[in-house]
Amino acid sequence: MDAVGREHLDLRDVPVPQPGFGEVLVKVAAVALNYRDKMVVETGRGLPLRFPFTPGSDLSGEIVALGEGSSRFAVGDQVISTPTPDWIDGLRPGTARTPAYWTLGGFYPGVLAQYVAMPEGWFVRAPSTLEHWQACTLPVAGLTAWFALVERAGVRAGDTVLIPSTGGVALFGMQIARANGAELIVCGDRENEARARALGADHYVLRDREDLVEEVYRLTDDRGADHVLEVIGGSHLGRSVELSAVGGHICQVGALDGWDISAPAIPLMLKDVTIHGIGTGSRTALERFVRAVDRTGMTPVVDSRYPLRELLAAYDHLDRGPFGKVVIDVAS
Amino acid sequence: MDAVGREHLDLRDVPVPQPGFGEVLVKVAAVALNYRDKMVVETGRGLPLRFPFTPGSDLSGEIVALGEGSSRFAVGDQVISTPTPDWIDGLRPGTARTPAYWTLGGFYPGVLAQYVAMPEGWFVRAPSTLEHWQACTLPVAGLTAWFALVERAGVRAGDTVLIPSTGGVALFGMQIARANGAELIVCGDRENEARARALGADHYVLRDREDLVEEVYRLTDDRGADHVLEVIGGSHLGRSVELSAVGGHICQVGALDGWDISAPAIPLMLKDVTIHGIGTGSRTALERFVRAVDRTGMTPVVDSRYPLRELLAAYDHLDRGPFGKVVIDVAS
Amino acid sequence: MDAVGREHLDLRDVPVPQPGFGEVLVKVAAVALNYRDKMVVETGRGLPLRFPFTPGSDLSGEIVALGEGSSRFAVGDQVISTPTPDWIDGLRPGTARTPAYWTLGGFYPGVLAQYVAMPEGWFVRAPSTLEHWQACTLPVAGLTAWFALVERAGVRAGDTVLIPSTGGVALFGMQIARANGAELIVCGDRENEARARALGADHYVLRDREDLVEEVYRLTDDRGADHVLEVIGGSHLGRSVELSAVGGHICQVGALDGWDISAPAIPLMLKDVTIHGIGTGSRTALERFVRAVDRTGMTPVVDSRYPLRELLAAYDHLDRGPFGKVVIDVAS
Amino acid sequence: MDAVGREHLDLRDVPVPQPGFGEVLVKVAAVALNYRDKMVVETGRGLPLRFPFTPGSDLSGEIVALGEGSSRFAVGDQVISTPTPDWIDGLRPGTARTPAYWTLGGFYPGVLAQYVAMPEGWFVRAPSTLEHWQACTLPVAGLTAWFALVERAGVRAGDTVLIPSTGGVALFGMQIARANGAELIVCGDRENEARARALGADHYVLRDREDLVEEVYRLTDDRGADHVLEVIGGSHLGRSVELSAVGGHICQVGALDGWDISAPAIPLMLKDVTIHGIGTGSRTALERFVRAVDRTGMTPVVDSRYPLRELLAAYDHLDRGPFGKVVIDVAS
Repeated sequence: MDAVGREHLDLRDVPVPQPGFGEVLVKVAAVALNYRDKMVVETGRGLPLRFPFTPGSDLSGEIVALGEGSSRFAVGDQVISTPTPDWIDGLRPGTARTPAYWTLGGFYPGVLAQYVAMPEGWFVRAPSTLEHWQACTLPVAGLTAWFALVERAGVRAGDTVLIPSTGGVALFGMQIARANGAELIVCGDRENEARARALGADHYVLRDREDLVEEVYRLTDDRGADHVLEVIGGSHLGRSVELSAVGGHICQVGALDGWDISAPAIPLMLKDVTIHGIGTGSRTALERFVRAVDRTGMTPVVDSRYPLRELLAAYDHLDRGPFGKVVIDVAS
Repeated sequence: MDAVGREHLDLRDVPVPQPGFGEVLVKVAAVALNYRDKMVVETGRGLPLRFPFTPGSDLSGEIVALGEGSSRFAVGDQVISTPTPDWIDGLRPGTARTPAYWTLGGFYPGVLAQYVAMPEGWFVRAPSTLEHWQACTLPVAGLTAWFALVERAGVRAGDTVLIPSTGGVALFGMQIARANGAELIVCGDRENEARARALGADHYVLRDREDLVEEVYRLTDDRGADHVLEVIGGSHLGRSVELSAVGGHICQVGALDGWDISAPAIPLMLKDVTIHGIGTGSRTALERFVRAVDRTGMTPVVDSRYPLRELLAAYDHLDRGPFGKVVIDVAS
Repeated sequence: MDAVGREHLDLRDVPVPQPGFGEVLVKVAAVALNYRDKMVVETGRGLPLRFPFTPGSDLSGEIVALGEGSSRFAVGDQVISTPTPDWIDGLRPGTARTPAYWTLGGFYPGVLAQYVAMPEGWFVRAPSTLEHWQACTLPVAGLTAWFALVERAGVRAGDTVLIPSTGGVALFGMQIARANGAELIVCGDRENEARARALGADHYVLRDREDLVEEVYRLTDDRGADHVLEVIGGSHLGRSVELSAVGGHICQVGALDGWDISAPAIPLMLKDVTIHGIGTGSRTALERFVRAVDRTGMTPVVDSRYPLRELLAAYDHLDRGPFGKVVIDVAS
Repeated sequence: MDAVGREHLDLRDVPVPQPGFGEVLVKVAAVALNYRDKMVVETGRGLPLRFPFTPGSDLSGEIVALGEGSSRFAVGDQVISTPTPDWIDGLRPGTARTPAYWTLGGFYPGVLAQYVAMPEGWFVRAPSTLEHWQACTLPVAGLTAWFALVERAGVRAGDTVLIPSTGGVALFGMQIARANGAELIVCGDRENEARARALGADHYVLRDREDLVEEVYRLTDDRGADHVLEVIGGSHLGRSVELSAVGGHICQVGALDGWDISAPAIPLMLKDVTIHGIGTGSRTALERFVRAVDRTGMTPVVDSRYPLRELLAAYDHLDRGPFGKVVIDVAS
């Protein structure tokens, strides 16, 4: 298993592929980048990549041809990709020994291309209310936040949701919490406060204040947060347990602070807290999320758009901590 | 806040208390000990104890008098105590800041006495199929295993349950898993293998074998365990995550290996695992557990019975790792 | 068991009651009427009423005195009543033989009085964003819609909710559906269309159009409704089953068309539909609903307010089909 | 759409089919009959049948060849069919307008043949503890009872399950209830009492006794049944509602008494009862059921076995009310 290496990125035109049996040909309009894409390119992440390798998992585009035996879509349909294509509904694939790491732009080929020919089941209809450069952000960042807060944790109107960051999944989490009628507490840096409040944060707590836990108790009349979108991980999980309401839900979705999570057992046990391990979501969940986007008017936050030829600059932007997603306009 | 101190234990007869408004008078027949009782006596555990302090939370006895306004039971009813008496059903009491540590034999008075006068709501009917020295083991050890595996994790016939110990909660967990039709894998020492198999263990894995995880994968055809009753805690939680099936449930109920739990985030996330913090259960759950005991014929494992005057010897027995519960025959 | 009889209504001042052990004294500010109140007065409804009988279940008021042993509230707290006071959380009280019909203004005394002295557990804190004449509408009509759509059926953003009426529970259902981000289809008369749309109805279908089912299929691209708030009952349940999406939820909350419900079995079975029997909700659910009201800004629809001395006129108004609740201003 | 007509049954050998892309060739060992099969043959049931039509949905057999692109099984694997093959996991297929009636031996070809070539996804591994003539009974009758009681209603140890019949689904329901540790009440004719008790019925109530409801109240100390497997339908649903415990679950799975179900609304509402429409179950549920069969030792009840040439006699047997399934030994 090898890394790809940024120096090997090759942006030349390649022939348009032919859709095989049960496949569709998609003309890619836009691709949203995830930090993981960059890591796959730079380190290979231990995945069994197949070369030439195409990175990227999140596309929005249009069906331009149907392979034999393909009937899920019609030519002209606008679609987005599913990041974990084997996971249709219900139980995720995989076993205890071999969890399902089979995602686009990793085990499977990626989508940073002008055309992709892939099984029709790997796509869902795009929301009708978004442009391609917005819709392409839904498959990983949007779906992860949706699956966590709505389908696993069951957020509902009046609940308090705490989001301790302003990264890509976190920004979707804010909008999803608000769309479901929740009260929203965001923790972050001073510079992002105004933008977080504009997205619906009812309260904004500076992440470095020493009495952060105390402040959340105060904001919630000691009740704590019904849901925490744990995008930081590591020992921050312990703080999330402290902040949790009785019967609260913590969704472990990120690992900015490390891949080994830790927490005190006592408040976890005495408060009946539930921790949900979250790694994206199913295709059916993505379809429900698309409906929610169309019906509630959620608009993804996009920090910047780059043409495909500036892909390396876009990768570099990821390192600088964008506020929202970084998108490649493939069709431009 | 003070420790009680073993040297202050005082076993003299005291006057029979009078049941107040809404209270019942219970003649105590038997009390099951928990390691926590011993710790409260020896260290106080930071609890706001009221002196003279009575330890113990798990009694079985008989209603012998009713206070004014008491109608839940009749004189002659056989009852057991609820360990967390404010938790009737649904959401546990408490807040994020102040979790509900209000248990019998801690914040509230205990039950190691010949008679107790307590609110009628603190008791439930004892199972009709058990003797007092068996029934008294249900409130903490039994209810914790029941609430974890059945009411939080939702075990069902055909599921695989892994229990990595042969302690008190673990032994109940084995019987509860079998009563619900699950396949049972137990990890423990060589000396307890025969007794665990007699309780229904389909597989027994020595806890110190280096390839324990591999062995569980083998036993489950790589599927892993649908449910882990995590009675060990600490970094053992990480092993439980590795052992978990996709969509699996880990019930964090014990902390033999420490109060700081830790685990790798990646398999937790890629396998959609859920971790449930468990601290006993509600009164309604205890009523359901009592019904299950009566209908399935589960029989609690009692290692030893001591008369009340040998309480200190019984406490010492707890340190030696009994196989099953240690019970004080109060009425003998 | 007797009816009360409208002719026996007696509106004279009575002495202010004294709160007993564990009770609070509430100065009643406003009481919302339910059609059931009128039926109890006129027919007794087969309930074991105690005379002199006080009707009414839904109050908003202020704590003015505490009985001995009462600590849930402080003097000056604003509170609303719980309609089924024995139902705190989790499983509803009652048995198969004797369901829990123990409500205020029926089995228990009612609240159409200037002062009531009742157990402190029968009240919850009123929302801080509403006036008394609004808050008093929450206990029956609001809680029923909340418990149905949110706590039983699990509505979430993007779901389609169908409400086939514009009665009191239905109007709350509309606001609750919208507060949770759902798409809303309302069926009703021409005259109520504008008001339903103002409350958030995305689509309004005239209830007497022959192709109503076809129209809902059209509005939902054949998917059907994820949730139906069945306030009509009788054979209308059959139509709700036809309208249901696969995996849909029907909440049986009303019986305008009769107390015997009926439906075709085949679509119920082939679409995996769930029917939830709903009769108000628990106290804990009411607390969650109050939080949701405060956080989402839902405002109850009140058709008319009457002073207590015009109670009979207010009852008559119920017969004329108000749009929203009819409220008695007790304190005015 | 036509009926098939019993007079057109044609049992001649036909050429062994070739498995197409993604298909497997299965040598059929045994097929279990359902009453529905007979109705399809005799009336067509309004289905768009394709001729020559093969009836039957429930096979057990062996994989004897793999089509191109097929990897789910190996040659030699023992398999059973899934009755609703498009339903893999999670949400059932179909829409409000067009529920998913796409079953084997109806919309799709059936399995009453010596060999069938079908998509690999239409099969699951057979239990290792059963013979083919037993395993073939699982897909419809077994899965329906499993999906109802376990996956929708959530039966657990100590619950009371009431089954008001001794038909094919009912007999599976009895064994599934017992395997999950439930108490079992069966209602039926005098002649089936001994056999029902042998299958684990704790109580047997004659179905025609006038005080049946009263008797169930007595057997359950007035609590009622936590789960009713409603295999009778029609107005019998009303009786099931009366028999239901508070918070009880009724699984609507059959319609012996008619396709229009009816019930009183009041006890449904006051007891918080849930009615689940059930039409078989998903493939993933069938896999879980197979595991439960292997681990608990459940053995399907087979009334009679017929060779394929006596298919008409076997159909006639269905009319006489067998106790257990009627099976065709295809391979004999």
